[in-house]
Amino acid sequence: MNTLGHIFRLTTFGESHGTAIGGVIDGCPSQLELDFDFIDSELLRRKTARSSTASQRKEPDQIEWLSGLLDGVTLGTPIAFMVRNEDCKPEDYEALKDIYRPSHADFTYEQKYGIRDWRGGGRASARTTLPVVVAGAIAKQILREKDIQIIAKVTEMGDAEQARREGDTVGGIVECCIKGVPAGWGEPMFGKFSAELAHAMFSLPAVKGFEVGDGFALAKMKGSEANDTFINKKGKITTATNHSGGIQGGITNGNDVVFRVAFKPIPSLAKPQQTVNRAGETCQITIEGRHDVCALPRAVVLVEALAAMVTVDAMLLR
Amino acid sequence: MNTLGHIFRLTTFGESHGTAIGGVIDGCPSQLELDFDFIDSELLRRKTARSSTASQRKEPDQIEWLSGLLDGVTLGTPIAFMVRNEDCKPEDYEALKDIYRPSHADFTYEQKYGIRDWRGGGRASARTTLPVVVAGAIAKQILREKDIQIIAKVTEMGDAEQARREGDTVGGIVECCIKGVPAGWGEPMFGKFSAELAHAMFSLPAVKGFEVGDGFALAKMKGSEANDTFINKKGKITTATNHSGGIQGGITNGNDVVFRVAFKPIPSLAKPQQTVNRAGETCQITIEGRHDVCALPRAVVLVEALAAMVTVDAMLLR
Amino acid sequence: MNTLGHIFRLTTFGESHGTAIGGVIDGCPSQLELDFDFIDSELLRRKTARSSTASQRKEPDQIEWLSGLLDGVTLGTPIAFMVRNEDCKPEDYEALKDIYRPSHADFTYEQKYGIRDWRGGGRASARTTLPVVVAGAIAKQILREKDIQIIAKVTEMGDAEQARREGDTVGGIVECCIKGVPAGWGEPMFGKFSAELAHAMFSLPAVKGFEVGDGFALAKMKGSEANDTFINKKGKITTATNHSGGIQGGITNGNDVVFRVAFKPIPSLAKPQQTVNRAGETCQITIEGRHDVCALPRAVVLVEALAAMVTVDAMLLR
Amino acid sequence: MNTLGHIFRLTTFGESHGTAIGGVIDGCPSQLELDFDFIDSELLRRKTARSSTASQRKEPDQIEWLSGLLDGVTLGTPIAFMVRNEDCKPEDYEALKDIYRPSHADFTYEQKYGIRDWRGGGRASARTTLPVVVAGAIAKQILREKDIQIIAKVTEMGDAEQARREGDTVGGIVECCIKGVPAGWGEPMFGKFSAELAHAMFSLPAVKGFEVGDGFALAKMKGSEANDTFINKKGKITTATNHSGGIQGGITNGNDVVFRVAFKPIPSLAKPQQTVNRAGETCQITIEGRHDVCALPRAVVLVEALAAMVTVDAMLLR
Repeated sequence: MNTLGHIFRLTTFGESHGTAIGGVIDGCPSQLELDFDFIDSELLRRKTARSSTASQRKEPDQIEWLSGLLDGVTLGTPIAFMVRNEDCKPEDYEALKDIYRPSHADFTYEQKYGIRDWRGGGRASARTTLPVVVAGAIAKQILREKDIQIIAKVTEMGDAEQARREGDTVGGIVECCIKGVPAGWGEPMFGKFSAELAHAMFSLPAVKGFEVGDGFALAKMKGSEANDTFINKKGKITTATNHSGGIQGGITNGNDVVFRVAFKPIPSLAKPQQTVNRAGETCQITIEGRHDVCALPRAVVLVEALAAMVTVDAMLLR
Repeated sequence: MNTLGHIFRLTTFGESHGTAIGGVIDGCPSQLELDFDFIDSELLRRKTARSSTASQRKEPDQIEWLSGLLDGVTLGTPIAFMVRNEDCKPEDYEALKDIYRPSHADFTYEQKYGIRDWRGGGRASARTTLPVVVAGAIAKQILREKDIQIIAKVTEMGDAEQARREGDTVGGIVECCIKGVPAGWGEPMFGKFSAELAHAMFSLPAVKGFEVGDGFALAKMKGSEANDTFINKKGKITTATNHSGGIQGGITNGNDVVFRVAFKPIPSLAKPQQTVNRAGETCQITIEGRHDVCALPRAVVLVEALAAMVTVDAMLLR
Repeated sequence: MNTLGHIFRLTTFGESHGTAIGGVIDGCPSQLELDFDFIDSELLRRKTARSSTASQRKEPDQIEWLSGLLDGVTLGTPIAFMVRNEDCKPEDYEALKDIYRPSHADFTYEQKYGIRDWRGGGRASARTTLPVVVAGAIAKQILREKDIQIIAKVTEMGDAEQARREGDTVGGIVECCIKGVPAGWGEPMFGKFSAELAHAMFSLPAVKGFEVGDGFALAKMKGSEANDTFINKKGKITTATNHSGGIQGGITNGNDVVFRVAFKPIPSLAKPQQTVNRAGETCQITIEGRHDVCALPRAVVLVEALAAMVTVDAMLLR
Repeated sequence: MNTLGHIFRLTTFGESHGTAIGGVIDGCPSQLELDFDFIDSELLRRKTARSSTASQRKEPDQIEWLSGLLDGVTLGTPIAFMVRNEDCKPEDYEALKDIYRPSHADFTYEQKYGIRDWRGGGRASARTTLPVVVAGAIAKQILREKDIQIIAKVTEMGDAEQARREGDTVGGIVECCIKGVPAGWGEPMFGKFSAELAHAMFSLPAVKGFEVGDGFALAKMKGSEANDTFINKKGKITTATNHSGGIQGGITNGNDVVFRVAFKPIPSLAKPQQTVNRAGETCQITIEGRHDVCALPRAVVLVEALAAMVTVDAMLLR
């Protein structure tokens, strides 16, 4: 359950303050000369994105490549990589060891496993998405050669600076567009391109909504408004509008694949909150750690990365 | 890709106007005495739901059980079942054989497979969801013994009767609540309960949006508004509010699991539409067949069925 | 667990004396015009093979195709098919209802599921391999277009006619050769071509041994005897000998893939045997039913069918 | 394809002379206090086993645990670990860079991937089985608590010392016994306990044969000789003999699970061999590296490890 994909598969491992965070990519085509600068720049996008809205944790995020490469070229064998968790301050969290932070996964992990790594959210920390950025960057490189581009942006976000002053946090929406996917990708029934995207996006922490094309707005339209008329554009069949977001019957129609992902606000607040501890006693907490006010800026590269992985997987299945 | 689930697995088969529609359920616990009346009543919900808003196609929908049962009791082996497509009028569709209906899967299936069953939507027809109702009914029976209930309802829908007069169609939203799921179900990372639900719901035709808890509305909230405070309610730890929809970190927290699914309007319109045919020529179509004005009433039992399947699967994985 | 394959996937269902036996093939390429005569002839091979050594059960084995085809051409959607169990005489088995037949699966199924279909072996009956012949015939048709041939034969078998007179049964060995597989098929590590073949063959009832190339005999050789020297044969690199059976490091080397499968004797004996019943009481049984003296003749087409399925799957993964 | 198992899953990575060899174990139960001494002793068994018959490569084989543990206790999250390849002498292999060693995977990997790591066999090296020992040790620890024991031994082996003098190598057979598995484990049809064992064993380098119980010898027996009579032994139903090797219909019957694995001789010979190079030219090679004369002693712990993994997986599926 820590693996995503059918052919291009990423298995991730790591807790926020364990020894390392990393992943194993299985099914990556061989003879690909990895663009390490691009991978680093994607990791940097994740980091610099965090400027004003982000936490103060400083990790060098230096990737160590463990396998699957010969002189930087993929062998077709599993590509394992990891990043050490160097800047650990578990003592920041010790006070929270026995307390269930509201809307965090502390309580649910403990219910599931009977144990949890209480240091910074453990396996449920946003830090565990780092391997997704790495795998996504490789997927993007593969798609680049097919002239497929993936571009996401924040289209809605609360007022982060005000929230910071109030010790509060904000959520928002990321919109993503996959350009250049040919018609005919995706599988019918239980392997729809839209279903795979939905599954992937809901793997990100804090995601609570996903819609394709006009999404929820389609629920209010009439068929005559919502339908995408087919037209012949210089010999190529396409649609005049794109309410469907490039997917019909779960399969791409050649138009841009467009979707939106809703993120709830980060649950770690600087302002005091009421909660209960392990013993079931009511208590108050103030989360002092180094936390983002808003996950949206860093979510952009994550949404792109997962979209790239889903798209490469559909390409390889095809 | 025609299989859903990890332990409790449904594989479906069938085209709208082929010989039969059916499924194979693998991983159903043994020694369960199937409640055939309940299964029939669920199929009936799907049918009678279609009264005013639905198509005129009349199928007896008589299930034939092919395997996996001894005197109505499950053996633990695959349960295969089918329903014959008796009321076939493929000639209704012959006129559409070479035409791509707007916002249908005609074009995308042909791009993917180089061939498509043009009779009534083929594999992309809503009729192919019938096996989901059967598997869902069995899943509900399993959950009933654990006091887990699944109830969905239409919470938003266009004006169907007006649309019918105009030769148009409408979409809407189905909300679903899973009551009684214990805390600790679902998997971390890529197997989140929310991700499995999203995946399953996007398998339904016409689904374009999915949200858990307050969903997209959370994107506009502050953390202090969105967080669910833990409380001790008579010795049991629960949350005072349920903005998270019963899921935190992808794992159930013991509160009701609540989600909403957005359906676009049915794309088959009685009113004339412009499109192109296989040769790329512009043409006009009027879809005369027997079609629903709105898929929502019948979608309710489908949403419940898939939710039941995902929940049983999480239970068995646990 | 009733599914075999990664891309070309067969899910089977059915008990020996239930309503029907059948399967669902997912992942079969579209636009293939099925050679129904060939499929029937493969089923006939299974039946006529049973002449002198085989049971007297007469099944018309008329395949009913349920989905996935349009005018006999594959749509790319799941191909479901079934054969009804018409000639059922469960009363033949009623006497054995509470008795564990030696070296049959009666006891183990009951331990696993707490229930079993006691009529003719239920799910563990050799009859449940019928869908394998159908899927194998389709796989062979796909391979035929790539000039890949699969030929199996019985290379060792006890004296069946003598065994019949004695109320006894015999086992034997089937050898299979896959000709024309290009070098480079199969996956490393846990997806080796040899491992996939072994897995598939052990799915057949009564299989107790499997070896590739010189197999167990290699354990007695020296490296200098066992190694296959590479040679350049008219510009093509191949091996002078084929001790490895066409597979090195789990991947095909372009030479014939050769393997052998050992079958134990059929455990149903006409001569009296001692055993225990459900209550744990010692008792004697004489199995009167219509049973083969030797499974080998019919096993030939089964071994070929599974080999074809594994080879097509490797081809599609490639 | 670098993953083994359904619930207890091991994904491995690494090439013989890359940065590191390692694995990720997903699905290990939480709250297990790992017995690190036992894991080290299993790794040591692999190393010391190599005394007289083994290669001279010295690796400290110090495991670095990367994730999934808190104070040595499993969290239920993925357990990642690695061992660095410190003692690399790739120059030993440079001469072989363009030469296909007979009965090695050089040629097949290159055919499959168009590239290969020529340093010491790369991904096809026996060194890549190290993660199997680690995962197997954890699996054994889990089984120990259920009183299930796994013991393998070499039952047949060529004369290693003579072979060494001749610059040759030998193969052999490992027999393994799983004691204490309850009746009812394993799945029917395509998930048989025997099939899973066969699949796992064929994942080891050099394995060319696998048999359960009396295996190939059963092909020569009559049913009356091969059948295992059920008896009531002090209130417990068991079998008087164990020709079936503890498995009937693919499911365990409570008796010892017994199987044998045939290994071909190691293909790296000190004596000269003829082969071809990349250009297709005939050439002679003498493999000077540090190589085992016989893989059997170290294979014992590998066979046990895989058997333990398959057994734990069956237990968790149950």
